[in-house]
Amino acid sequence: MKVAHSALHARHDGGKELHRGELVPCFEMPVRADYILKAVERAGFNVSEPRPFALESLLRVHDAHFVEFLRTAHEEWRAAGKEGFMLPSGFPARSLRRDHIPSGINGKMGYYAFDASTPIVEGTWEAAFAAAQCALTAAAWVAEGDKSAYALCRPPGHHAGYALYGGYCFLNNAALAAQYLRDHGFARVAVLDVDYHHGNGTQDIFWERSDVLFVSIHGSPETEYPYFLGYADERGEGAGEGYTRNFPLPRGTTWKEYGPTLSAAMDVIGGFSPDALVVSLGVDTYEGDPISSFKLATSHYPLIGQRLAELKLPTVFVQEGGYAVDDIGTNVAGVLEGFLSRR
Amino acid sequence: MKVAHSALHARHDGGKELHRGELVPCFEMPVRADYILKAVERAGFNVSEPRPFALESLLRVHDAHFVEFLRTAHEEWRAAGKEGFMLPSGFPARSLRRDHIPSGINGKMGYYAFDASTPIVEGTWEAAFAAAQCALTAAAWVAEGDKSAYALCRPPGHHAGYALYGGYCFLNNAALAAQYLRDHGFARVAVLDVDYHHGNGTQDIFWERSDVLFVSIHGSPETEYPYFLGYADERGEGAGEGYTRNFPLPRGTTWKEYGPTLSAAMDVIGGFSPDALVVSLGVDTYEGDPISSFKLATSHYPLIGQRLAELKLPTVFVQEGGYAVDDIGTNVAGVLEGFLSRR
Ligand SMILES: [Zn+2]
Ligand SMILES: [Zn+2]
Repeated sequence: MKVAHSALHARHDGGKELHRGELVPCFEMPVRADYILKAVERAGFNVSEPRPFALESLLRVHDAHFVEFLRTAHEEWRAAGKEGFMLPSGFPARSLRRDHIPSGINGKMGYYAFDASTPIVEGTWEAAFAAAQCALTAAAWVAEGDKSAYALCRPPGHHAGYALYGGYCFLNNAALAAQYLRDHGFARVAVLDVDYHHGNGTQDIFWERSDVLFVSIHGSPETEYPYFLGYADERGEGAGEGYTRNFPLPRGTTWKEYGPTLSAAMDVIGGFSPDALVVSLGVDTYEGDPISSFKLATSHYPLIGQRLAELKLPTVFVQEGGYAVDDIGTNVAGVLEGFLSRR
Repeated sequence: MKVAHSALHARHDGGKELHRGELVPCFEMPVRADYILKAVERAGFNVSEPRPFALESLLRVHDAHFVEFLRTAHEEWRAAGKEGFMLPSGFPARSLRRDHIPSGINGKMGYYAFDASTPIVEGTWEAAFAAAQCALTAAAWVAEGDKSAYALCRPPGHHAGYALYGGYCFLNNAALAAQYLRDHGFARVAVLDVDYHHGNGTQDIFWERSDVLFVSIHGSPETEYPYFLGYADERGEGAGEGYTRNFPLPRGTTWKEYGPTLSAAMDVIGGFSPDALVVSLGVDTYEGDPISSFKLATSHYPLIGQRLAELKLPTVFVQEGGYAVDDIGTNVAGVLEGFLSRR
């Protein structure tokens, strides 16, 4: 399996987030990608730089004004005499307007964001764009005949919507990969999101579409981030009705409940008869994860990979979350090796 | 002029907010009320404890579930094993649901909030309820015949909506005062908000009503908090159409532009022929304010008070913002004394 990776991910560094009343360095840190890289190299995977996809490629799933905001945000921040990382201080939440984008950088940032834990630093755009290129490159490899590929994306992407960022995510790498496959001969594409958190951004992007199925297994938003999307009653709208399926699970979920839920999700995918699969691969379902609460063990990740292989589909794996850095490489490589063992 | 003040305001203390990339003690700090108290005592005003209004009084302008959330939030936080101050980590912003209240405390907090700069601490409810009682007490004095009264409220209230908190505000003291007047013989009540920031909460509460006029002069939301409400095109809806009027002004506004805008706002109020006036009295329009950008001088506050007296209406002043603590007492007392000098 080929791996797309860019060292530019490290440009996204130095931001902090609010965690339990303290401002701490983000759990989404550069070393995550370094450890995953080491693990896939150790497993003998072939790692390449991403191809130089143009900025326009992003506009297949993202709003042009939003992309321009991301590209210029920190520059505008500095031009306004500010420095360091950017965190928004007000959001278009309940009873506030959503139909006007403030002209100032603080308001504009709040308009496009939905949390105060996703700092933008000087290098964020460069890193996010490189991650998107990794996802597009992995999708291109599969479109060109590879049976599977892995995009080692950092920052992650599944919380980023059509014109929305948050949850450590800026550009939706998995959605870009799915759209690329749609644009290159795959009529029906399924996205399976196994990150601990609901992929609200991916759901947002494909909400009204029947050509991309979105299926997610995640901690229930009743108690888990992102709180305001990912409930079981969300099933898509318009042409997309029935093409979004959520499997929220309670805190403390172990493999005993996770395994059958994965089977149920795969049944939904099987019923869709997709031509290709994109996996939003978060490993924050791990028992050692510092910000999540599922109880999967390292031994379960190869089993997930083996199950996914049963779909016998061209498959693009896209890296999402996972914050137990010591084990992140082993757990990610476990999924990929499990997958390959059954192809 | 009688002053309603409760020492319980000091129970709301110890929280921090994000400011320019640092977690700092809130600018909305207890000493604000202490300095105002000293200034009004120095000016010879008669300070009293608020009357013990029941919790039900709050439900005239607030949602019962929201009030219950505020009352029990920190208790629930501690019951979940957490400690210290509460700041939400995700909001029902764009492309997210607003029709479901998560059951967990983090999601519930985000549901009711719209920023990450309004910490809830153990004593927040006690302080906010006491501030609301101060506003209701001042309104009662006026309903009972006093020509004017001042509610020394802390925490402030004008950013708090029907079921929304933020901007250092939890319960909308000014809206409670206006509603009290409506309920006690005043058929038409005008609220004039002169705080530097738009009173989005008050506007929210009276948006569809024609019996309470809401007029606000504030820093333009294009660049100033709360960013997502307070534009000139917001005029109310339904029965309330035409009964909301906003006067956003640019950063750096001086008395030269502020004075005529105040006159224009007063003309709107005059045209409404109200039976009583509630003033949301923020003095963060002051040139020394650390988080605002207007350039009013201490000498202008008595002029504001004199102008307001020209309306010749029973008037309840309700304290909102003002963060230049050294001068806050002088500026607030300046408005009140200016007002009295023309009665
Ligand atoms: Zn995650
Ligand atoms: Zn203010």
